[in-house]
Amino acid sequence: MHFLIIGGDAAGMSAASRAKRNRPDLEVTVLEQTADVSYSACGMPYNIADRGRAIDDLVVRRAEVFREKQGIGLFTGHRAEQIDPEARRVTAVTREGQPREFAYDHLLIATGAVPVRPAIPGIDLPGVMVLKSLADGRAIKEYLQARAVRRVIVLGMGYIALEMAEALAALGLAVTLTKPRPGLLPWMDPALAAVVEAELRRQGVEVLPGRTVERIAPSDGRLRVTGPDLDLEGDMVLAAVGIRPESRLASAAGLRCGVAGAIAVDARQRTSHDRIYAAGDCADAFHAVTGKRVWIPLALRANRAGWAVADNVCGRDCRLPGVLGSAVFKVFDLQVARTGLTAEEAREAGFETAAVVVQSRSRAHAHPGASEIHVHMVGDRGSGRLLGVQMVGREGVAHRLHAPAVALHAQMSVEQFSQADLAYAPPFGPTWDPLLTAANQLLKRM
Amino acid sequence: MHFLIIGGDAAGMSAASRAKRNRPDLEVTVLEQTADVSYSACGMPYNIADRGRAIDDLVVRRAEVFREKQGIGLFTGHRAEQIDPEARRVTAVTREGQPREFAYDHLLIATGAVPVRPAIPGIDLPGVMVLKSLADGRAIKEYLQARAVRRVIVLGMGYIALEMAEALAALGLAVTLTKPRPGLLPWMDPALAAVVEAELRRQGVEVLPGRTVERIAPSDGRLRVTGPDLDLEGDMVLAAVGIRPESRLASAAGLRCGVAGAIAVDARQRTSHDRIYAAGDCADAFHAVTGKRVWIPLALRANRAGWAVADNVCGRDCRLPGVLGSAVFKVFDLQVARTGLTAEEAREAGFETAAVVVQSRSRAHAHPGASEIHVHMVGDRGSGRLLGVQMVGREGVAHRLHAPAVALHAQMSVEQFSQADLAYAPPFGPTWDPLLTAANQLLKRM
Repeated sequence: MHFLIIGGDAAGMSAASRAKRNRPDLEVTVLEQTADVSYSACGMPYNIADRGRAIDDLVVRRAEVFREKQGIGLFTGHRAEQIDPEARRVTAVTREGQPREFAYDHLLIATGAVPVRPAIPGIDLPGVMVLKSLADGRAIKEYLQARAVRRVIVLGMGYIALEMAEALAALGLAVTLTKPRPGLLPWMDPALAAVVEAELRRQGVEVLPGRTVERIAPSDGRLRVTGPDLDLEGDMVLAAVGIRPESRLASAAGLRCGVAGAIAVDARQRTSHDRIYAAGDCADAFHAVTGKRVWIPLALRANRAGWAVADNVCGRDCRLPGVLGSAVFKVFDLQVARTGLTAEEAREAGFETAAVVVQSRSRAHAHPGASEIHVHMVGDRGSGRLLGVQMVGREGVAHRLHAPAVALHAQMSVEQFSQADLAYAPPFGPTWDPLLTAANQLLKRM
Repeated sequence: MHFLIIGGDAAGMSAASRAKRNRPDLEVTVLEQTADVSYSACGMPYNIADRGRAIDDLVVRRAEVFREKQGIGLFTGHRAEQIDPEARRVTAVTREGQPREFAYDHLLIATGAVPVRPAIPGIDLPGVMVLKSLADGRAIKEYLQARAVRRVIVLGMGYIALEMAEALAALGLAVTLTKPRPGLLPWMDPALAAVVEAELRRQGVEVLPGRTVERIAPSDGRLRVTGPDLDLEGDMVLAAVGIRPESRLASAAGLRCGVAGAIAVDARQRTSHDRIYAAGDCADAFHAVTGKRVWIPLALRANRAGWAVADNVCGRDCRLPGVLGSAVFKVFDLQVARTGLTAEEAREAGFETAAVVVQSRSRAHAHPGASEIHVHMVGDRGSGRLLGVQMVGREGVAHRLHAPAVALHAQMSVEQFSQADLAYAPPFGPTWDPLLTAANQLLKRM
């Protein structure tokens, strides 16, 4: 039996490795268009911040290891061009332009996502970068090394934009963040966003929301970024305005695509065609709170979905539960995290939304070194259910978020969550954990 | 209506404050035998470690505030001597030896716990200390200030013993820990205990398990601690061998006591007598995993139980869910945490126990500054349920424990927990969180 995989990143290589572990006799082939497989994409901003480290430090497992130790037929430099679901065949083209055909019994599409490049003049100029693939990270590192970069203009204010603002500032560069809409992260409660924005400004980052960029143009060896109320000069521009699922191959093969253009899959990661699975940033998922299809590209799910595909291909029946969009990032001295629905998402999904923001402390009364923890919690008045949590703070945020994520999977009510027996010690929080205080406050509004 | 409370610490003052918030017209009286109310007992080791801070920094709210701002009849220096459940009357004695009687409609016994003093010669010598009340903490600080203490011998290796080892070492003192039984913390998986013991030794603490202390004696102005295979000299001895519930009043009044001598209460915190509640370290609770009565004295539960009593006294029907014994402490650079059952407790409770220990990392592949995280996870082969988790590590342990605690309340299976959508970013953990890796490994043994 031949298991063919298009895409050698998180979902693809997870599936390949697990399939071989499940069934060593299985023939597993991976087609990867770039030269890189199995690297920590999320680690790129931290790697870029460190001139002393090569970008290849992020490679978790080299192609040879997959080939020689694991017996996976891994073809780098092979771009899949077409899927023929009836003939169960994929046509690829090599780096040298040679077409090659690969037959399969089961196919996994793990083509990931691609960065959105705003359609403005100058977006293809040298020095205008994106950050998604290891090649992108390599290009940014090389550019920063080769040029006398002093100021970087970042388009966007999402995770990548903020992580890169920190990385570039760590390199001693001036950073300006700009985006067309007001506010910072679109999903974030305004009270929490204000904390993040204050931290960015405190760290010397220029934050310019509500500005549309119309053009990037060369200007005396630099780059000029202009719009109706914007005129900036920098040495590099990073377009971090988002990503979109790379679902063109799937779509051209007649597979059903949906939310945000992502490939529609069932709980087994199967597409609208029996023998074809999709996993990772190119595929959609069901939301664990609403039950509706969503597209939330994140690393853990990509790995997990890759495993699920491998298990299903090998004859186990593996169905994944829904996603919560649990995410965390670090921006300078702050930890920012979310899980589940925002208040707005909850309203849109038809819940009778109640929400609260509390400010608590990261350590107990009288314990030195405490800082503020801000918790935004959303519940449903109708059912009493907990719907979502966001947090910002200098410590104790990233892992604290795991608890409401588990509560959301368990469909706990806010009251049940408020009664959770959470561990307490003075260096780690108040007796009433910030999460419990938020739940207690939210209960009063339900 | 008169609500009388015996004991002015966590449970007692939580109940008093909440009752007054619920019903400002309620007459609330608190009898506290010491001069101190509402202080952060758990903060004492950290306060003792800091010569520059007064022990009274740990007072959260002063007695006058309770009296004047909250209208609570707070009588410090009043020791309750007898409860007459039929007459609904408590007899107390003042610091000056005057008897006073207090009638009640509802009574809360919140007498807490008292430290166990080993019954050995010399246990009452000056310089032999315990640490439970603020007065104990004050005495230790004063002793350390007044004497040229160089070495402290700590009897016991529980939370307090370990936290105090760190505190005393921070003051530049030599510390020896000793206990009769082998091993470190009795509940801890040996692989994890070895990590904690190595940290203690690395920090210069002498660790002598398996030694029985038979006698403490004065010796040239110092204290000599001896036993069959022990002969130590120090300037102070801290007896930290455990605590027991202070249930003598309740027992003498004919109330039912049970596990470890704790006052037996129902989910509403009601004792075997209708009008009498108990809460805090003197009361038992039901375990959320086994459903059985347990005595696990911890601060959050004391506060929560105090609230529950106030709500019930005020006519709301408040039933508390079970406890998990979730606990965390810091010992030097390590965070140590547990929730739910140990493998041994699980076996004793009749579960078909499966357990695993995994070693993971606190940060992602290639992210600088990572350290080891050790996770011990226990499940039930019969039902598939998650039963308990223990963790040790330098970072990312304390709050990560919240997640399995919530999962235990929700009676999640190990498989469900293994599918939780936990947030990931390179500074905070691997893509597969250590908890998920432990769950994945445990699944293979179930």
